[in-house]
Amino acid sequence: MIKTVEWTDEGVRMIDQRLLPVEEKYVMLRSYDEVAEAIKEMVVRGAPAIGVSAAMGIALGTQQAVGTSVDDLQQDFDYICDVMAATRPTAVNLFWAIERMRAAFGRAKAETQDVEEIKQLLVKEARKIFDEDIASNRALGRFGGELIPDGATVLTHCNAGALATAGDYGTALGVIRGARDAGKRIAVIADETRPFLQGSRLTAWELAKDSIPVTIITDNMAGHIMKQGKVDAIVVGADRIAANGDTANKIGTYMVAVLAREHRIPFYVAAPISTIDLKLSSGDQIPIEERNAREVTHIRNQQLAPDGVEVHNPAFDVTPNELVAAIITDKGVARQPYTETLRKLIAS
Amino acid sequence: MIKTVEWTDEGVRMIDQRLLPVEEKYVMLRSYDEVAEAIKEMVVRGAPAIGVSAAMGIALGTQQAVGTSVDDLQQDFDYICDVMAATRPTAVNLFWAIERMRAAFGRAKAETQDVEEIKQLLVKEARKIFDEDIASNRALGRFGGELIPDGATVLTHCNAGALATAGDYGTALGVIRGARDAGKRIAVIADETRPFLQGSRLTAWELAKDSIPVTIITDNMAGHIMKQGKVDAIVVGADRIAANGDTANKIGTYMVAVLAREHRIPFYVAAPISTIDLKLSSGDQIPIEERNAREVTHIRNQQLAPDGVEVHNPAFDVTPNELVAAIITDKGVARQPYTETLRKLIAS
Repeated sequence: MIKTVEWTDEGVRMIDQRLLPVEEKYVMLRSYDEVAEAIKEMVVRGAPAIGVSAAMGIALGTQQAVGTSVDDLQQDFDYICDVMAATRPTAVNLFWAIERMRAAFGRAKAETQDVEEIKQLLVKEARKIFDEDIASNRALGRFGGELIPDGATVLTHCNAGALATAGDYGTALGVIRGARDAGKRIAVIADETRPFLQGSRLTAWELAKDSIPVTIITDNMAGHIMKQGKVDAIVVGADRIAANGDTANKIGTYMVAVLAREHRIPFYVAAPISTIDLKLSSGDQIPIEERNAREVTHIRNQQLAPDGVEVHNPAFDVTPNELVAAIITDKGVARQPYTETLRKLIAS
Repeated sequence: MIKTVEWTDEGVRMIDQRLLPVEEKYVMLRSYDEVAEAIKEMVVRGAPAIGVSAAMGIALGTQQAVGTSVDDLQQDFDYICDVMAATRPTAVNLFWAIERMRAAFGRAKAETQDVEEIKQLLVKEARKIFDEDIASNRALGRFGGELIPDGATVLTHCNAGALATAGDYGTALGVIRGARDAGKRIAVIADETRPFLQGSRLTAWELAKDSIPVTIITDNMAGHIMKQGKVDAIVVGADRIAANGDTANKIGTYMVAVLAREHRIPFYVAAPISTIDLKLSSGDQIPIEERNAREVTHIRNQQLAPDGVEVHNPAFDVTPNELVAAIITDKGVARQPYTETLRKLIAS
């Protein structure tokens, strides 16, 4: 089982995703600001993995707080939560995990005034978020696996796999693993997913490790491959899903969704309930992170573009709900009209 | 003026496009097989540039042939033409240029039995093809420039610029230069165009050199940028256009065309008449080159994907004519139904 992020007695242990697939190296983060930096710098990425990491970072930081009163602890805790919240703007799982930790702090404070005990309860909550993530992706994989026919070739964009979650199954790749574990033969086509190359670096790596057949294409080949009839279904993850089903996910997802409709291929979004943000009525309200130009102009230290050239680098785009055939969650599969079905799933 | 390929007394001089934008280096090719290798290895690329280069390679090789009879020369000439024809399969300008050289050989033989004189006539023909390419792209640029509104932002894919032709204007970028030279303010968005990065490496380089504002995006951002209303028109080049207007061009072009229709943005193809292949009734018959997996798995020597992973790497795709708003040629602008209008333009 791939362990993307893990709580240990020494700190938060993560696989450094920037070095994959060339090097499988784990880093030990020994303070909350090291965790925050790792999220910002994409040592870890993927909406659910960011959520789990932030929770662990908060637990770690609070554990190391030196104040002896509950008020001091609360102050440190709030500050750490704010630092975590400022790491990346789009994935709602980050804010969801912070809220979970805040609620846990509130409950702990109501139970005890012992600072050490509160710290322990926060660690417990972070580990619970980790366990729930693994379990919810197993559930999501079972639900989603039923939608994928035996013998299908599934196209995916970015990495919504073990590496985008706490580990194990993943979300979009959880659906593929769910189908595989139900006895179906599945092949995967992975968009390389520029600029960060999560597809060729991460998805290809974890599927190969899992002996699931995978073929890499550059992002601009997806239309051609679909036109040739080589794709039976598309499954992607999500960074935030609005109440109406509009889905923010890795840049390029919107293009894949438009092409899916053009070629009558079902386009599925796979994400745990924690990715749904009912506070936003539509995807227009989802903040889109703009990242550094250097991600586009350079690969490692190789210069790919002239000095000083202008670059756009939005990290995400929004796919309108009408392009989404179904949203696969850990509580079941939602279909149109999402404004009703998502609310019902969450309440269930 | 950018000189992509040039006839000199020493041989065929080319800018090595694999080193751009980091290094502006020219190579001198002193034999026909060096020219053939340069085409294969993409020292030079772009349909019209391949045509001009092949013609020069044939002239060079024939010039160096040692036989003293016309029959010997013919034999060497035919062999060289076959070597050139085997370099790359998709761009029809290659075969068109070879045909031009064959016809020139035929005419020369009818005129003279002097081997040296025939050699000179072949050099003259190759240089004529070069001159015509420059002139035809100027004409194409004037026609196309009229279709682009003042203040427009034009998206282009791959490099169909000076570097894809003999030099100077280019085809798709010829349209942009034509608009600029007609006094219009034009900005360009360049898809980086994986795997070979002709957009970020070449288009950005030559537009920056020409002081035309250019912004690079990764290929998978095109849909998002169009959805935001940031693109007013799209112009791309072509490697081969079938009689019905179906257009083979750099992989990813088809996706851009589908997205253009989705967002009601006019999608134009710019190519000289020599790119139209009336022998093919539709794009289904255009051979699509599959290139080496390493272009996708590595950038220079940086490994981007796990060892031994499967890769698709089609170099081109076909855009169906119904997605093409107009085909801009050196003889004027063709619109639907292309089966009639292209034939008329060629005959005109």
